[in-house]
Amino acid sequence: MTVHFKQVTIVGVGLLGASFGMILKRRGLADRVVGVGRSPDNLKVAAQRGAIDAFEQDSATAVAGAELILLATPVDSYAAHLTAWKRVLKPGAIVSDVGSVKGALVARMEALLPGGVHFVGAHPVAGGETSGAGAAAPDLFAGALCLLTPTPNTDAGALETVRRVWDAAGAVVRVMDPFVHDRILGAVSHLPHVAAFALVNALTDLQAQTAEDGTLLDYAGSGWRDTTRIAASSPEMWRDICLENRDNLLRMIDALERRLQRFRGLIDDRDGAELEREITKARDARRTMTTAHDARRRLP
Amino acid sequence: MTVHFKQVTIVGVGLLGASFGMILKRRGLADRVVGVGRSPDNLKVAAQRGAIDAFEQDSATAVAGAELILLATPVDSYAAHLTAWKRVLKPGAIVSDVGSVKGALVARMEALLPGGVHFVGAHPVAGGETSGAGAAAPDLFAGALCLLTPTPNTDAGALETVRRVWDAAGAVVRVMDPFVHDRILGAVSHLPHVAAFALVNALTDLQAQTAEDGTLLDYAGSGWRDTTRIAASSPEMWRDICLENRDNLLRMIDALERRLQRFRGLIDDRDGAELEREITKARDARRTMTTAHDARRRLP
Repeated sequence: MTVHFKQVTIVGVGLLGASFGMILKRRGLADRVVGVGRSPDNLKVAAQRGAIDAFEQDSATAVAGAELILLATPVDSYAAHLTAWKRVLKPGAIVSDVGSVKGALVARMEALLPGGVHFVGAHPVAGGETSGAGAAAPDLFAGALCLLTPTPNTDAGALETVRRVWDAAGAVVRVMDPFVHDRILGAVSHLPHVAAFALVNALTDLQAQTAEDGTLLDYAGSGWRDTTRIAASSPEMWRDICLENRDNLLRMIDALERRLQRFRGLIDDRDGAELEREITKARDARRTMTTAHDARRRLP
Repeated sequence: MTVHFKQVTIVGVGLLGASFGMILKRRGLADRVVGVGRSPDNLKVAAQRGAIDAFEQDSATAVAGAELILLATPVDSYAAHLTAWKRVLKPGAIVSDVGSVKGALVARMEALLPGGVHFVGAHPVAGGETSGAGAAAPDLFAGALCLLTPTPNTDAGALETVRRVWDAAGAVVRVMDPFVHDRILGAVSHLPHVAAFALVNALTDLQAQTAEDGTLLDYAGSGWRDTTRIAASSPEMWRDICLENRDNLLRMIDALERRLQRFRGLIDDRDGAELEREITKARDARRTMTTAHDARRRLP
């Protein structure tokens, strides 16, 4: 069974929001898609590319008639939005999101909504270091995971509606507890981002120390490029993720530190045998990962 | 002016060695290419793919008549090879390599060669986590950097000959001091590898801590895949690189630690403004890198 909306409002028409709009329009899931954003230029691009039918700069006006509202702005902005919309949201409306952190945030959002309006936390694991409506694509979520994070308060019908929209987008939907979500994503996404940010900033420091050797980056190959690709992600978004998933991330940075210190110790001690074992452990684990990842991308 | 050899011997016919052989044969740079390796199966693949004309398991026999010998085995093996070849190498022969570390290694190799035989250190920055003759390709080095690392003892004619071979392979050749090489590659290649190894092993630790949440890797996206891709590299090769570039690498791991600790501190303190500045610094530096990298790949 498919799902259909008279009006959907997308708040934040960046890469994820605009791609979502393109899917709604192309698949005929919504009669009217309204976009809300700070940049008129980006909203115009979104309209030209068929992601939205109309746009507003005031979000309270834009969400008034919507049956589904998608929050696709940095998570730090959610509370202010929901507070401003309290009196205008339509009974039965569903507020969902695309944020990379869930945990306690979901319960905070539930508490800010009036009775009869439903919150459904969602996190499509897609996107990356590109941004803006200009980079949007209707197949962005095809084969990608979309994690839905209901709580005991979540309306079952609203959850099912959101699940159907993501099914229609071609995403592989999984349902999990919001706190489990943050432990998992902390490990496989947030920690690698912090590692990539730190690695790039370390290179800037090393460049300052070895200025007489020329520009280090002139010698960077594909290994460097791939390892640091995600460091080009949005600072505003990643600031919020770091702060929202603080406790998990502190513990996970400590785990990375311990492994880095182990490498340092083995190199310092010139312990070739143990060093080879540690690298073999990483290589074997990485190969298993590739298999798991590739298997999922082959799903319908 | 092109270069031509009656016989070239490639010691270690893996990804780099076999790709080099394919170039020599296809471009008509050598009448005969002899491969040396431990795995008969891999040598047969190299012969079938046109990378070598013949193969030997004993390297001293294989290098006896060669004008150019390419070392493409882990750097730890170089000294044993050169010692075994002392009495068989042809006067005027050139021994070169494809190793990822240079520094003091180059002078050690020079000292092991008999008079009239020349060492020219070379490092084509290509390859990665694939391996074996089956993965070789004649365009592997096209547009890639190849760093030549002469010392005051290096024969100018031998350096010029090696440069011409790499020119013919389509590589972008740069000449630099062996110690400068190790500082640069330590920063842009060796440190990212150690970071990727540590990150993968940290994830294995986090998996053990959060076993009840399921398999973390089932939720890994393209960010994780790219950030850790180079962790699937050869343990034997990377053990040697870590040990050979030990002093630079210890200093560089410390630089990464400091930046990681800075992130940890800012997250712990909930310092959103400073966190955003630190991430912006990384993002901007990473964007500059992309530009530098892409500019080089556009070279002829």
